[in-house]
Amino acid sequence: MKPFHPVDPHYAERVRDSFSRQQAMAFIGAILADTGPGRCEIRLPFKPELSQQHGFFHGGIVGTIADNAGGYAAFTLMPADSGILTVEYKINLTAPADGELLIARGEVLRAGRNLVISRADVFAVKGERRTLCATMLQTLMTMTGKPELQG
Amino acid sequence: MKPFHPVDPHYAERVRDSFSRQQAMAFIGAILADTGPGRCEIRLPFKPELSQQHGFFHGGIVGTIADNAGGYAAFTLMPADSGILTVEYKINLTAPADGELLIARGEVLRAGRNLVISRADVFAVKGERRTLCATMLQTLMTMTGKPELQG
Amino acid sequence: MKPFHPVDPHYAERVRDSFSRQQAMAFIGAILADTGPGRCEIRLPFKPELSQQHGFFHGGIVGTIADNAGGYAAFTLMPADSGILTVEYKINLTAPADGELLIARGEVLRAGRNLVISRADVFAVKGERRTLCATMLQTLMTMTGKPELQG
Amino acid sequence: MKPFHPVDPHYAERVRDSFSRQQAMAFIGAILADTGPGRCEIRLPFKPELSQQHGFFHGGIVGTIADNAGGYAAFTLMPADSGILTVEYKINLTAPADGELLIARGEVLRAGRNLVISRADVFAVKGERRTLCATMLQTLMTMTGKPELQG
Repeated sequence: MKPFHPVDPHYAERVRDSFSRQQAMAFIGAILADTGPGRCEIRLPFKPELSQQHGFFHGGIVGTIADNAGGYAAFTLMPADSGILTVEYKINLTAPADGELLIARGEVLRAGRNLVISRADVFAVKGERRTLCATMLQTLMTMTGKPELQG
Repeated sequence: MKPFHPVDPHYAERVRDSFSRQQAMAFIGAILADTGPGRCEIRLPFKPELSQQHGFFHGGIVGTIADNAGGYAAFTLMPADSGILTVEYKINLTAPADGELLIARGEVLRAGRNLVISRADVFAVKGERRTLCATMLQTLMTMTGKPELQG
Repeated sequence: MKPFHPVDPHYAERVRDSFSRQQAMAFIGAILADTGPGRCEIRLPFKPELSQQHGFFHGGIVGTIADNAGGYAAFTLMPADSGILTVEYKINLTAPADGELLIARGEVLRAGRNLVISRADVFAVKGERRTLCATMLQTLMTMTGKPELQG
Repeated sequence: MKPFHPVDPHYAERVRDSFSRQQAMAFIGAILADTGPGRCEIRLPFKPELSQQHGFFHGGIVGTIADNAGGYAAFTLMPADSGILTVEYKINLTAPADGELLIARGEVLRAGRNLVISRADVFAVKGERRTLCATMLQTLMTMTGKPELQG
């Protein structure tokens, strides 16, 4: 993978601002743990409200942070005055999301002018063990000249 | 599409029981609105906690109820003593999920012995208007002899 | 589904021209059977050269005509001076593609300015029987001002 | 990624046998270039019969070898007396497949008892340059006790 060079030097701040305006992230308790050029890590501690019928993280919640990790990885490479749109994503749930913490790592595979392709892996952390519980492949669109809404 | 004939006459009750054990559904406020052989409808009223940075429903939340609508559509056709697992899903977000209510309609495309293929469409309702905001294609697995956990 | 109104009255001719320039279609023996606003049907008679290890149509060949049926369904709605690009597609292979003929039916789910979302179903025809052997969900991009190459 | 340990010591021969029975591979001119535990590489030299309307490799052909590379990567880990079935795959076409050769590299992400999740990347080779032209995420099923057909 070639290194990516963000066109916006303030990309990290822009990503944090956008993340903090997503009320759904605060609601589920997700944390923006790290960003870099073409990558993003999101963490989500377990709480019973996020569970499915077996007491593990709900697959939709796993998909939510995978979508966000891949999306914000893409957003790091977009111009300062742009917005971002998820066009589509596909997620394979590879193991039960059983753990006290989820870590979602997104990375850009290809950054085109209009479209960006990202990938994200989600790991369930249980004590010392990390299990890959989902992998995602995603298409995102740059909305040029449509900056993210300010609060 | 051929009509489906559930092998478990008590499928509707079984789906309701499983849905009610998914704490994530109560947390976001999703309602199991309807089930039938090979189909399921889930509704989700808007609340600000479910929003992304523009104030619309978050794409991950849209994915969560699409996943559930397609999954429970599949679960209606599974045997009484079985559990269900989402293998993977792909979702296209076709319009901003802007509205006071989301309606997710899942239907089974093909029911195999081990694997079931479902589709779900999600509509955003705003006053009189319904807009298709997402469409999903999904693979589910029957876990034979592994009934859903009882509370 | 709302009816679609093509902006190019000569869309059917434009689709036929593009299809006839795809050498891969002639090579495998695929036929453009029908087009309409937002839809397209492609047919492919069986020959042993198209088979996988069990003697059925190869899954990649099934994907090829599904991709084309969905893509040309989208192309019917694009402007006269545009080209088309498949961004991505997901295909579920729902049954063995066992038959003397494949019929792929593509239809547009949503036509945006830049992106079009299509769906395609592929049926295997064996005597009187039609079996759904694949279903596909696809994203396409309009390349404005980049007309298809002329032979 | 953890190393994989094939249960069948003769996996490479089994993959070669199955590949050689896929007439579609000989028809398009694809070559099984390499296999290892949980991985497979397929190469496809360009010929005009494989092209779309711009003279590049057709997207469906790109999908065909991606499907096979991911599928045979999975097949290396399956038992001697098993067959394999592609359940579904999603492919993002990241750049025009413009080159004199395609190289598809498949690798297993997770090997379960019934289902295997694979990924494949496809590169277009033009002189010294390699361009990622597609990336794929795939679900495969082990057909236990259903060995591949013998010619």
